[in-house]
Amino acid sequence: MAVGLETPGNLHPIQGIRLAAAHSGIKQDNRLKDLALIEIEEGSSVAAVFTRNRFCAAPVTVARRHLEQFPGSRYLLINSGNANAGTGVDGMDAALRSCEAVAENAGVNPEAVLPFSTGVIAALLPVDKIIAAIPSLHASLLADNWLLAAEAIMTTDTLPKAFSKQVVIDGHPVSITGISKGSGMIKPDMATMLSYVATDALIEPGELRLLLAQVVACSFNSITVDGDTSTNDSCVLVATGSSNVRVSASSIDFIAALTQVFEQLAQAIIRDAEGATKFVEIEVQQAPSFADAKQVAYCIAHSPLVKTALYASDPNWGRILAAIGRAPVDNLDIDLVDLYLGDTCLLRQGLPDPGYTEAKGQAAMVGEEISIRVNLNQGGEAARVWTSDLSYDYVKINAEYRS
Amino acid sequence: MAVGLETPGNLHPIQGIRLAAAHSGIKQDNRLKDLALIEIEEGSSVAAVFTRNRFCAAPVTVARRHLEQFPGSRYLLINSGNANAGTGVDGMDAALRSCEAVAENAGVNPEAVLPFSTGVIAALLPVDKIIAAIPSLHASLLADNWLLAAEAIMTTDTLPKAFSKQVVIDGHPVSITGISKGSGMIKPDMATMLSYVATDALIEPGELRLLLAQVVACSFNSITVDGDTSTNDSCVLVATGSSNVRVSASSIDFIAALTQVFEQLAQAIIRDAEGATKFVEIEVQQAPSFADAKQVAYCIAHSPLVKTALYASDPNWGRILAAIGRAPVDNLDIDLVDLYLGDTCLLRQGLPDPGYTEAKGQAAMVGEEISIRVNLNQGGEAARVWTSDLSYDYVKINAEYRS
Repeated sequence: MAVGLETPGNLHPIQGIRLAAAHSGIKQDNRLKDLALIEIEEGSSVAAVFTRNRFCAAPVTVARRHLEQFPGSRYLLINSGNANAGTGVDGMDAALRSCEAVAENAGVNPEAVLPFSTGVIAALLPVDKIIAAIPSLHASLLADNWLLAAEAIMTTDTLPKAFSKQVVIDGHPVSITGISKGSGMIKPDMATMLSYVATDALIEPGELRLLLAQVVACSFNSITVDGDTSTNDSCVLVATGSSNVRVSASSIDFIAALTQVFEQLAQAIIRDAEGATKFVEIEVQQAPSFADAKQVAYCIAHSPLVKTALYASDPNWGRILAAIGRAPVDNLDIDLVDLYLGDTCLLRQGLPDPGYTEAKGQAAMVGEEISIRVNLNQGGEAARVWTSDLSYDYVKINAEYRS
Repeated sequence: MAVGLETPGNLHPIQGIRLAAAHSGIKQDNRLKDLALIEIEEGSSVAAVFTRNRFCAAPVTVARRHLEQFPGSRYLLINSGNANAGTGVDGMDAALRSCEAVAENAGVNPEAVLPFSTGVIAALLPVDKIIAAIPSLHASLLADNWLLAAEAIMTTDTLPKAFSKQVVIDGHPVSITGISKGSGMIKPDMATMLSYVATDALIEPGELRLLLAQVVACSFNSITVDGDTSTNDSCVLVATGSSNVRVSASSIDFIAALTQVFEQLAQAIIRDAEGATKFVEIEVQQAPSFADAKQVAYCIAHSPLVKTALYASDPNWGRILAAIGRAPVDNLDIDLVDLYLGDTCLLRQGLPDPGYTEAKGQAAMVGEEISIRVNLNQGGEAARVWTSDLSYDYVKINAEYRS
């Protein structure tokens, strides 16, 4: 089902990171992994961003607090199949107990463990199953297990999502490897559903936080499936420093490589979006501000009418026009707007392009990868958003999930 | 398919209003009416609200201008099957020519005619067919034709929408009758897709405008199918004064009756929403402001995940919670929020209600009419929004429309 997405290959291990995955019994099917553990070498820098949804899950609250209390996180414990969200005091207790179990087994303090959960909301986490699985999970940690970990954090994902990149900085190779998951309830606000990226570059914690904020804005915070921000969105970036190559938030080559890893991981979520048959890039150019450009792009990306037209490969561009027109952007002058579907111009300065034909529109819509470009001609800022179409299968997946 | 909606009956004629409907050839199927004409007696008060979508259609631009130039509108000409939106200069010309044709036939000035269109966006209006139909349309005007007119303005609607009400003011009967249409691209911003309401009450134009703004806020501006604001939304309220019963914007009994007519017409659009199998009322109480209450209600109403859960009759209330949590409301304190599905409490003060069981949740979801109630416990304002679910048929209708 996924659009232009394959099982990841060739993932560079990151010295200082070890991973393990197991089936602990949260998912019914015992062939499916549902628990991952990521070990971070002492002395690494760790930065994280979390959902801005006010109803954030218990593990998000605990992870945020632990990272504040002890910035040198040593373990990330992630379960799939249950989000531990909307679970009240019992949910907080379960998240804390899972951290304590990892801490005890590894001989670290509980604040050095960050918990993460993804899956059904508002069901109690079977934490005893997790605790029982921890000793053997810890014993199976390996530097080469990135793909296994990517599989263990999947929910409605049809494929694991991972990407790896090597870049030469000051003559020395630096590696970046990351995994992500998510295919529904996707309009991350600060981070995606779940993503973990590590590099062996040497980066100060403050610089790492700057870097993470910068790359998240144009990757995980630029995708949407359904406009629904999850209660569990989390993204963690780790720099182990094992390469001894020092990097800062102004290292252009490193930022380019890191951005590519984040973009690939974010795009993988859209390519595997629930029911997706199209991968759609929406670019809004020459806007008064980045925020305005994003508002227009999201208005198009969230329109169920645009999304169903995309599914039908129907160049019904009146729907795109209607979506632009309702974007909450001050002083938007529609008499300046240009609209393109692929290379085909639909609208020029707010008026139908005389060269447009239905056949050209159709041709621009048949592929699996669609590009919609809007030029507001009202400023110098631009934004790009990636989204999917709205298909029968989206309804099927979400009407049947849980049952 | 419509949820709890039947063909309207017993529509009171309004003295001073005559209506006619015909098939002019815009719709392919010649059994379907696609043109309506509404005649307003000289001396009536007329008020209208139009879409705030910046890409408003040519007829909206012309109707707005004509009403400004000449507040005593005499004719409303409405076609379905073609929205005359995104049609540039040719579209403006077509809208103006249709007004001139009505004006010439009736012996009034063109500014006394307001044009309205609904249907496919970005296709040229076949105005010659409309012009050819006008003489016979004008000749068939009758006071009893409300239902015919309601049928003529339908697009993807499965049933005509009309409602009528009589109320006694100062011992004298006053009638209110209205029609509406729309079932997709519905999140009106000032007015619904199309609605025309008339009363024989005597109301000054300024008072009528106040009244219209007041009742639209809680009716047409409180519904959503898909969050998509149409390019053609228009709502017209006419007071012919033929009852000689004078009414102002502070006449409580009249406002109550008028509100009921508007609510019924707005709800009819949701009951007949594209693919709808559920009619859902979302009420947000004790909010800091009316705008905040509406934001929270719309966040729930627009969530594809909530809508597919409604379709599946699945009390997956974690999705409602996630939607509330992402509402753009300042200082929303989730530890104060109560959530009800029908009479069943799900969440009390931000925590799962101990008395909740899955069986109770299921029972609250099986019916066709669902009520979701959120109490923010953070103020004194409330808002109600009506919406529909997201079904396979929604995708089918919108993937196949046009083809």
